[in-house]
Amino acid sequence: MRDLSRDRDLEHFSLNTGTVRAQGDFLANLEAAKRHGISQVSPWREQVAGVGLGRAVKAIRDGGFRLSGYCRGGLFPTDAAHRQAVRDDNRRAVDEAVELGAPCLVIVAGGLPQYTRKGSAPSKDIAASRAEIRDGLAEMLDYAEGAGMKLALEPLHPMMAAERCAVNTLRQALDLCDALDPGRSRGLGITLDVYHVWWDYEVHEQIRRMGPTVCSPFTSATGWCRP
Amino acid sequence: MRDLSRDRDLEHFSLNTGTVRAQGDFLANLEAAKRHGISQVSPWREQVAGVGLGRAVKAIRDGGFRLSGYCRGGLFPTDAAHRQAVRDDNRRAVDEAVELGAPCLVIVAGGLPQYTRKGSAPSKDIAASRAEIRDGLAEMLDYAEGAGMKLALEPLHPMMAAERCAVNTLRQALDLCDALDPGRSRGLGITLDVYHVWWDYEVHEQIRRMGPTVCSPFTSATGWCRP
Repeated sequence: MRDLSRDRDLEHFSLNTGTVRAQGDFLANLEAAKRHGISQVSPWREQVAGVGLGRAVKAIRDGGFRLSGYCRGGLFPTDAAHRQAVRDDNRRAVDEAVELGAPCLVIVAGGLPQYTRKGSAPSKDIAASRAEIRDGLAEMLDYAEGAGMKLALEPLHPMMAAERCAVNTLRQALDLCDALDPGRSRGLGITLDVYHVWWDYEVHEQIRRMGPTVCSPFTSATGWCRP
Repeated sequence: MRDLSRDRDLEHFSLNTGTVRAQGDFLANLEAAKRHGISQVSPWREQVAGVGLGRAVKAIRDGGFRLSGYCRGGLFPTDAAHRQAVRDDNRRAVDEAVELGAPCLVIVAGGLPQYTRKGSAPSKDIAASRAEIRDGLAEMLDYAEGAGMKLALEPLHPMMAAERCAVNTLRQALDLCDALDPGRSRGLGITLDVYHVWWDYEVHEQIRRMGPTVCSPFTSATGWCRP
């Protein structure tokens, strides 16, 4: 077995446990990570729920793991009947991230309500979804700031605009950060995944706009950096 | 059979004959258009070649058709061995558009060379493709300007960035227009297809940047408007 810990760049490596969910539950994922010399992970909510939050917290502490992020909150667009449930769900995600000791909660914003939150009244109005994302994120940021948890907004590839995320470029994500956290002090940042942004002709320019990375390491779909 | 000519908006309607290529050759497409009261079309090069340029020109004139555009030139990224052939091919496309009486030639820029021009040496350098697009378009614009033919650059959805077109947002297309035709007088414009740009959060703002439409009507994938 290759000992990954001898790789020079492993200090910047984090295992997104969503990528190994088929191989075992969250506790099994942590054991496998340990065997490979990986000490940093980014869990998903369903995986944590699968073993229970308390057991997940204990396994992380006992194993000496650090978290690079917690996946994920957001998925804001819904309808009036489900809005309170979505708000509550996102607050629970913040609370769990605090419990787990994550440096940030990754935010996938959501697309059209019928895909984002099953059972919501359908809509084709992506501008309305974006307004809801802005409002939902603003409210969630208030809560997260109070809890001392950073939010890491992740732009997703435009092929996912309707189904999963109507925030589709780094420019758009940074425009949202500028609007909601203009002083760059409240803890709204960015998660950047090459898979989602490789095609964007201005991604390098927009990365410069982000400024210095605050939480090092940050990796695909799990990190936080200050806009 | 419904007589489309009684629809109020038919004056802004153009049949992109690429959408009916399975139903018959270009001459058959024109006959079908006539039967439905459609007097404006946008042909594809392969369809025109299929019946011969001379016959296509005659059928357009005899049928009293107007063209909204001609599809398509561009597909610039290639390798050194094929560059002259691509240049020649694009000049032929301009010449054909002039013969056909098209108001513009639609430009699909191309992605990575191995997909854009089969047989080209492969590359994963999308920045290099974009440099080639810029240089190829600059040179083609010189030729088209001399021939009195406008070029209508079309941004394609990012899901096609590698295979077909590395120009993926209206902002990016307009940045190219600004760079190559800063005075807005040489005939470099935009084709806009809702299919490709619907997801873009700033498409309305960028449409305003385009300024007034010059060639009315312009329709999905076939029109020209001044940036």
